Amino acid sequence: MSEHTYKIIELVGSSTNSSDEAINNAIERANKTLRNMDWFEVVETRGHLQDGKVAHFQVKIKVGIRLDD
Amino acid sequence: MSEHTYKIIELVGSSTNSSDEAINNAIERANKTLRNMDWFEVVETRGHLQDGKVAHFQVKIKVGIRLDD
Amino acid sequence: MSEHTYKIIELVGSSTNSSDEAINNAIERANKTLRNMDWFEVVETRGHLQDGKVAHFQVKIKVGIRLDD
Amino acid sequence: MSEHTYKIIELVGSSTNSSDEAINNAIERANKTLRNMDWFEVVETRGHLQDGKVAHFQVKIKVGIRLDD
Amino acid sequence: MSEHTYKIIELVGSSTNSSDEAINNAIERANKTLRNMDWFEVVETRGHLQDGKVAHFQVKIKVGIRLDD
Amino acid sequence: MSEHTYKIIELVGSSTNSSDEAINNAIERANKTLRNMDWFEVVETRGHLQDGKVAHFQVKIKVGIRLDD
Amino acid sequence: MSEHTYKIIELVGSSTNSSDEAINNAIERANKTLRNMDWFEVVETRGHLQDGKVAHFQVKIKVGIRLDD
Amino acid sequence: MSEHTYKIIELVGSSTNSSDEAINNAIERANKTLRNMDWFEVVETRGHLQDGKVAHFQVKIKVGIRLDD
Amino acid sequence: MSEHTYKIIELVGSSTNSSDEAINNAIERANKTLRNMDWFEVVETRGHLQDGKVAHFQVKIKVGIRLDD
Amino acid sequence: MSEHTYKIIELVGSSTNSSDEAINNAIERANKTLRNMDWFEVVETRGHLQDGKVAHFQVKIKVGIRLDD
Amino acid sequence: MSEHTYKIIELVGSSTNSSDEAINNAIERANKTLRNMDWFEVVETRGHLQDGKVAHFQVKIKVGIRLDD
Amino acid sequence: MSEHTYKIIELVGSSTNSSDEAINNAIERANKTLRNMDWFEVVETRGHLQDGKVAHFQVKIKVGIRLDD
Repeated sequence: MSEHTYKIIELVGSSTNSSDEAINNAIERANKTLRNMDWFEVVETRGHLQDGKVAHFQVKIKVGIRLDD
Repeated sequence: MSEHTYKIIELVGSSTNSSDEAINNAIERANKTLRNMDWFEVVETRGHLQDGKVAHFQVKIKVGIRLDD
Repeated sequence: MSEHTYKIIELVGSSTNSSDEAINNAIERANKTLRNMDWFEVVETRGHLQDGKVAHFQVKIKVGIRLDD
Repeated sequence: MSEHTYKIIELVGSSTNSSDEAINNAIERANKTLRNMDWFEVVETRGHLQDGKVAHFQVKIKVGIRLDD
Repeated sequence: MSEHTYKIIELVGSSTNSSDEAINNAIERANKTLRNMDWFEVVETRGHLQDGKVAHFQVKIKVGIRLDD
Repeated sequence: MSEHTYKIIELVGSSTNSSDEAINNAIERANKTLRNMDWFEVVETRGHLQDGKVAHFQVKIKVGIRLDD
Repeated sequence: MSEHTYKIIELVGSSTNSSDEAINNAIERANKTLRNMDWFEVVETRGHLQDGKVAHFQVKIKVGIRLDD
Repeated sequence: MSEHTYKIIELVGSSTNSSDEAINNAIERANKTLRNMDWFEVVETRGHLQDGKVAHFQVKIKVGIRLDD
Repeated sequence: MSEHTYKIIELVGSSTNSSDEAINNAIERANKTLRNMDWFEVVETRGHLQDGKVAHFQVKIKVGIRLDD
Repeated sequence: MSEHTYKIIELVGSSTNSSDEAINNAIERANKTLRNMDWFEVVETRGHLQDGKVAHFQVKIKVGIRLDD
Repeated sequence: MSEHTYKIIELVGSSTNSSDEAINNAIERANKTLRNMDWFEVVETRGHLQDGKVAHFQVKIKVGIRLDD
Repeated sequence: MSEHTYKIIELVGSSTNSSDEAINNAIERANKTLRNMDWFEVVETRGHLQDGKVAHFQVKIKVGIRLDD
């Protein structure tokens, strides 16, 4: 974070592989329509279970977006 | 929540009748311009008082919106 | 909340009917001895159980009271 | 709560009608197999949305169960 | 907050002078593209240090925006 | 805090100038009717916005009051 | 807590002996001017140190007071 | 905590003497039917008041139970 | 989460490899005696250190279990 | 706390006797190498269980240390 | 924060003038013995009262210190 | 945690690969100058974004260090 103004949005990403990949998937999906994403913070990690295994991880993140001056 | 990416927005709805209706009013107002709203979480319940009675309930909620792939 | 000073008090109201009514009951009881109550915030919702049913709801609220200048 | 020992369990109840009924539904379902439930505390209120309306409320509660001496 | 519906957004403002000015800078930047901003709440105050001094304050705020009916 | 008993009250002060002044205004208003106020803690900082600017800061504080023995 | 309305106050008690005694000291001091105190909750435990030892414990509690109907 | 899997349960113990004894009473009561209890964490300390004194302490704890492989 | 009632249990799983695997290990152990596990939430991530390295990760999770009607 | 600058450190003390003694043990151990310790705050109380009894209490505290000018 | 390792310390600074100056005073005092301080976060704002006025502000901050590789 | 006294320090580690590796990197860096590190707890997970991808993970941890008697 530098001397700019930032907008913060909240996303939930998911992955069948790992909690880190769930973060990456949320960022990559958001990157289709947003630019200037600068940092993220993890808010919550959860997921679904099926047949006694983790079916997919879901990670809720906040993302800081730098606003143009 | 399934394997999609979700965006989370935060709303405050109000109602003169009940805290549940305040949630519904926020959702119905948001439904005018948003689609694919999937779930909500209550963040805070408060309200205004007038003449020693609850004048209206105000409920702050987070709403999860499913993003198209 | 406007440009006044407020005192905040904490109350627990109860009702055999609903959590919203428990808020109203706390406000109405406080209204017997206090004036200028302006807003409330819910702190906690709990209650007692009897014979496998909710016997009464108890809601802890904070109430903002506008102080005269 | 008196001088007994209590066990606390956590439940999620749901209702298409109201958040208070979601609490009652969780208690009634638990009452089929548990006795001596004494009090509850609301942990979280959330729910699902469908067609721009609340489809059902889901309330997470903790329930205190009095253990026999 | 009156009987309207509000949308809440989250911003980070910064200032080399003071934490209050960081709030003002975030509001003024947001005012370029948003109208009907009604209230703010401080979420977090932080900042960068340089040469053993505060280089700038960064304040994260939530802003309530009144939605038209 | 020394070996006395303290009562804690909660106040909201406001100021059009700064968040620090909002604290001072709450203390000065309370000082009209209370004595032996010893310390304060900030609970929440918020405020109202008008025309894209901070109209006034509102700071919620807890104040410790030393009780006579 | 039964079907009454309660007012909650916040106190800090202190003791050179133990944290439990600090709670008791706060209650006994409050009992000089208040009646119908029904329950307490510990909010915070802290204290002062002198010569590398605990000089006194300070315990912040909330106390529920049953209001007459 | 070693490399095992643990189940965590939540208990409330009470004692007319001290908050530490309330923890011990909860553990001893649970020990009648459970084995392999490994650690505890205090969640909340509260209690009842009678005649301006602490009638009994109630301590809510989480207890970690080691599951056999 | 659908319109069912859920019971929530709390587990700690461990793994010498990764925090995600610690979650999976807890779920697989619980699956030996429980059925209808639907979702999990991460409560806490910690672990033991040995010789300046992570010896194993320990992840505390809550698990939602769907109760039969 | 007066007009000085303080450094805050975090300690875990333990005792087989009581939670208060665990605080004292942490302070006495720290006193071997540190001076000017002024106050403490309890962060967490936990402990180990053995044979269905509390084997020892562990209390995590923050300690404020006055820095020389 | 870049790709380095950081150590975080906790300080309390004070000022008779403002809460922002209390942060600066803590940083300047720490700068006498520490280098590579990179950022701060406010943890708590409190202070002492005297004669119905704020005698001094005390701000607890965390400070991130970049470790050399 | 056994019957020793522990000091807790707070670190931020980073990694371009994974959040688990960020924990390991912090521990390995600290291990150059510290001994007797016993356990860690994750406080916060965040990171920087670049070109719509996670550039590196940053994990804030607390580390418990066993003090010699």
